[in-house]
Parts: sequence; structure tokens; C-alpha cells
Amino acid sequence: MVEFAPSARLRRTPFSAGVEAAGVSAYSVYNHMLLPCAFAGLVEDYRHLKRAVQLWDVACERQVEIRGPDAGRLMQMLTPRDLSRAAPSRCLYAPVVDGRGGMLNDPVALKLDEDRWWLSIADSDLLLWAKGVAQGAGLRVEVFEPDVSPLAVQGPKADALMARVFGEAVTGLRFFGCGRFGFAGHDLLIARSGYSKQGGFEIYVTPGEIGMDLWQALMAAGRDLDVRAGCPNLIERVEGGLLSYNADMDISNTPHECGLGRYCNGANLPGVIGGAALMREAETGPQRQIRPIEIAAEALPPLTAHWPLMADGARVGQVTSAAFSPDFGVGVAIGMVNKSHWTPGTALVVETPQGDLPAVVREKFWN
Amino acid sequence: MVEFAPSARLRRTPFSAGVEAAGVSAYSVYNHMLLPCAFAGLVEDYRHLKRAVQLWDVACERQVEIRGPDAGRLMQMLTPRDLSRAAPSRCLYAPVVDGRGGMLNDPVALKLDEDRWWLSIADSDLLLWAKGVAQGAGLRVEVFEPDVSPLAVQGPKADALMARVFGEAVTGLRFFGCGRFGFAGHDLLIARSGYSKQGGFEIYVTPGEIGMDLWQALMAAGRDLDVRAGCPNLIERVEGGLLSYNADMDISNTPHECGLGRYCNGANLPGVIGGAALMREAETGPQRQIRPIEIAAEALPPLTAHWPLMADGARVGQVTSAAFSPDFGVGVAIGMVNKSHWTPGTALVVETPQGDLPAVVREKFWN
Repeated sequence: MVEFAPSARLRRTPFSAGVEAAGVSAYSVYNHMLLPCAFAGLVEDYRHLKRAVQLWDVACERQVEIRGPDAGRLMQMLTPRDLSRAAPSRCLYAPVVDGRGGMLNDPVALKLDEDRWWLSIADSDLLLWAKGVAQGAGLRVEVFEPDVSPLAVQGPKADALMARVFGEAVTGLRFFGCGRFGFAGHDLLIARSGYSKQGGFEIYVTPGEIGMDLWQALMAAGRDLDVRAGCPNLIERVEGGLLSYNADMDISNTPHECGLGRYCNGANLPGVIGGAALMREAETGPQRQIRPIEIAAEALPPLTAHWPLMADGARVGQVTSAAFSPDFGVGVAIGMVNKSHWTPGTALVVETPQGDLPAVVREKFWN
Repeated sequence: MVEFAPSARLRRTPFSAGVEAAGVSAYSVYNHMLLPCAFAGLVEDYRHLKRAVQLWDVACERQVEIRGPDAGRLMQMLTPRDLSRAAPSRCLYAPVVDGRGGMLNDPVALKLDEDRWWLSIADSDLLLWAKGVAQGAGLRVEVFEPDVSPLAVQGPKADALMARVFGEAVTGLRFFGCGRFGFAGHDLLIARSGYSKQGGFEIYVTPGEIGMDLWQALMAAGRDLDVRAGCPNLIERVEGGLLSYNADMDISNTPHECGLGRYCNGANLPGVIGGAALMREAETGPQRQIRPIEIAAEALPPLTAHWPLMADGARVGQVTSAAFSPDFGVGVAIGMVNKSHWTPGTALVVETPQGDLPAVVREKFWN
């Protein structure tokens, strides 16, 4: 077992004290910040997430704030998604691509005001891309990272817990809807969203110094709901087909390859970076695409580098995330598969560090 | 102790197999890639680095390649350092700043050819900044990450080891000089450089698939020199005053504050991003600056967040990196200190998680 090496370079979060008091057993790094990855263990955390409610320190989902008279213009340059109907009460999943349509990040966009947006980012310094484009193009915007740290409340009992702390109204939010709710004199943006399929909320906590008060208030209010510290769970997120930037896709993939073509409905708008490339690809369709892959196995080793997907001895793709699912009794996986072999039902072989295993392309994810 | 959570999102390197065979005991993450942080332990690794020679997997020092007719123009936009005398035989430490002069990265620049450069980067996605500026400004360049993974050979016996594998000529390189040397039919760029004060080299290994062959060749050739796997060592690098981006400085600091004013000699050149801000600051001088800080202690806890530096009950700065030095018998530290208290000899108090300790501003780093 390899230890996690702490460093001043890797930022702690407003919730780190709570995470550590709760006995975090493994850390990862995400956007130069600590991301808890296990408490009781991958499987025990998974079972608990599906039956109760967890607090997740996802402060590492940093915000990029874009503010100024050209904020809307820059935002529409940054994403091929049509933002014309964006509103302060809606989260928008908005892929960000380079000039060739290659994925740079897959953030959630929040329009706070006509000239003020947040991008809630995956694991790449999207701040530098947005700042660089604005600098190069001479736009009248400020681009910076505000003091905002998301705290997720996830699990089937999330509504019950949130109602106790923020009032019944918060449970009226629809999926990807958001609104403002009070805590300790602060007006916090809360969305019904999160990186699981168990339901729940993300609280955009600001300023950071109220983080532990909120953490403790939620813990205290949820004692009889069995609330615990948790974190995004590999098994659960693969069952649900939730993608992880830099694992399941990177700059070499387009949104079409990632199954995100429906978020490219503004690719034809003027100024959209990568728009022309995405329009061309949309005509022919992608040559490879994300697929759910079922692996016949009773256990799987940790995936630390992509596993080749083979058919008749030739490589036809790779598995990019995988775990054994206790609930489904199979290896659940996300793969990028060539068009020749992406039809549901296609039998493949996956090369794992513990040997070749039979796999099959599925129609849908599990959850 | 918290475990390191492996993930497909965090890339392995061409040398990871060697690092793991050598018994890496702690990992960090740097540029979305694994960075070994300890083998025998911080102090034992330190002593060995100072007496023998180590191989360091610093593949995480990724390269940003800039290529095309506007490559030179973009490079000079990206750094306030005058690049007019750059040459293929020289490494140049070249701060990269935003429009306000805030540090975005402190890479080493390598001019490979008139229209081809590498930036060997610290821990931020400088690729996205360089791509963004080029995109926004419509420059004729390609900006991408090539398949290049630095391997450092550091320690007093580095020359002896390198001569055995690359020939005597490699020892003729001066500090920050570089040249091309053969290995297994590949022409590798090698520089006399590295993130220690013990002397040594950085080999820009490409393609990645020769990584383990080179690792093993160096290990085999250096057996009688006591060559071992190692890594950048916190104690040694603080003794030597080597800065770490995102620990000792970040986007809120200018090069002048970081003591890097001498690398801003091109701030007045046309098009340099942040040039005007840096020129203004150079007139008055910075209001705070990096200083060596000596802490009176016989041991120090790990620094995982900045420690306030106090004088007469008021905050006058912070310690950004610190460790107990066995060789100097004191706490060695890097701090950012306000002008009012930065004179060498000034007595301060540093607030650590284990209580207040006396500290003093030093004239120079230890090594």
C-alpha cells in the first residue's frame, strides 16, 4: 500500500477537518485539491450511499467565475451548447472543447446574472483556458476562482436531510434546477445535482469559513438518517454511466465520441470555439463512442491505466473505468469502442492485469 | 495514515514500473500524473541524495510544445523574460504570468528550433493557457503535449553515472546547458538541471516506451555508485531555496514577489502579457517577497497549509514550505514576508499546528 503524501501544493478544503474526523482512509487529488476517496471502504461506502445519505467534500469541483460585459460572449465561445436559454435557476452541463473539438473539461455552467457566470469544473485548469481565450481575444471580462466550495448531499435520504437544515422548499427543486437558501445568515446556491444516481444536492458553500458549521449542522440533523461522510463512489458512478474527465475522455476525444452530442446544439453559433469541427463530425457521426461494457468476472483489480478491448486479436477500443458491482454481480465498466464493434451485444475480450476476460457491449448503463 | 487512491484519471509514467519495484512508499499527484514522494523515508532519502545518486521519475514535468510560424511570437507573449538570445543549447527559467502579472507557472523554456519550443512545466495546466491565448489571438501555432517524460539523475555521483551510459561528453554540459545524446538508437535531449542543489541532469525521454530500458540501464550501470530510486526531497529543496508552484507562490503572486525579478528583463517588449503590470511593480518594488526563514525547532509537523508569520501579534506573512533539517539542526523554511519585516535578522513567530515557534528571516538559503 502506498501512502498519500500531503503537501502545501495540494490544497485542503473547508471540509477537510470533518473528512479527517470521519476517518477518511484514502485521498486523491482533483484540481490541485484533496478529494476523499474512501471511508469504510469502496464496497461498504457504496452500500451505505444506496441506502442512506452522505456528505461529500467535493470542494475540488472549483468554480471559474466569468464576470463583465463580455461574460456572455465568452461563455458562448467556450461551449458548443446553446446558452441562449440559460437562466439563474438552471444548471447546464456544458462541454468545453478546443479548436478541433477536443474535450478540455465537462463543467456545469451556472448563469448567475446577465454578466456573471460560474463554471463548476472537472479535473483540468479550465481557469487557464478561459483566461487565455479572454486575454488573446481582448474581451472585457474578469476570470477568476471565487471562494466557493461545493458540498454534496447524496443518497435516497438526501431530501429528508436537506429539508431539516434548509426548509421544505429545497425539496421542490427539480433535477438540475437551483435556487438560493439560507444558512447562518448566508444565502447559498443549492442545486439538485451531484455525481451519483442516488439523488441529492450540491451546495455551493461560500465563504469557506462557514464550511465546517454547515458540515456539522448536516451531520447533527441527520443522525437518525444514518448520515455519514462519503465521496464519489467508483462502483456506483460506473453503474450509472457518469463520466470522469481524464479517465473516460480527454483532449483527444470529441463530445460526440463521449455521447454528449446533444450538448452541441449551439455548435453553429458564431464564435463557438471548435464549433466547425463538431459540425463536420456531426455529419458523419463519430468513429468511436463511449459504451457500457459488462465484464464477466467475480472480482476486478483496480484500473490504473486503460485496459485494451480486443476482438479477433485486434484492438477495437479500451475500458476506461471499471469495478466489480456487488449489486449486479458482474464487472461494470465504461469503454470507448470503435464503430465496428459498438453494437449492443457485441462480444469482446478485455485485457486486464490479471488476464483476459470476456466482455460484452451493453445497450444501457445499469442504473 | 491515509492511503493514496489510484485512478485512471491520474496517469502512470513510463517509469512507474521501476518506481514501484523500488518500493515507492508515498505518492503525490502533479500535472494529473503520479509523482513519487518517498522511498526509504524523507530523511533517509535526503541523506542518500546528498552522498550518492538517484533516479527521479519526474515525468510529471510535462512538456508543452509550441510549433508553427508564430511559435516565437507566442512564446514571447507568454513570458516577461527576454527570449531574444534563446538557443537550442540553453534551458531558460521563464516565469509565465497573467495580464496582472500573477504567476501561472514557472516553467523551463527550451528553444528546439526557430519555430519549435518546449515549456517544461510546474503543476498547472499551462497547456490550456498557451492554447487559449493562441486561440483567442488567432496565432498560427499548434500547442500540444508531446510524448516526452523527464527522468532526473541527481546527486554528487550523477556525472559518474551519466558518463557510463551516455559517454564522457555529457559531463561537459554547463549548468542549464543542454545537448543531444544517444541511447538505444534514440537521440535524447539532456540538460544539466534538476530540482535539487546536489547537481545532476534531466533526460527528456521520448518515446515513453524506452523509459524502462533507460531506467534499468542507469540502475545497472550505477550499482557500485549506490544508485537508487529517489524523488524531489522536501528538506533538500527547502535548504536550497527551490520554489514549488502552488505551495510557495500562486496566481496571487508576481515574479517580483517570488524573487524572480531578474527573469522579467523582457517585460517592456511588445505583446508580453502582464508586461505593463510588472514594469509598474518594478518601479516601486514588491511589497512582500520570498525569504528564507529559520525556525527554532527540533522537529516540525508536515506543512499542509500555510503557517502564519506574526510580529507583535500582527500577521506579516506566512511560511509556505518547511521541514526539519538534520544537517543544519533547525527548521528550514520558505516564507512570503511583508516588506516591513523582510530584513535579514528580523525575529518573527510562526504559528504551527503544534504551537508557536520562534523564527528569524535569513539572508540566504542554506545550500
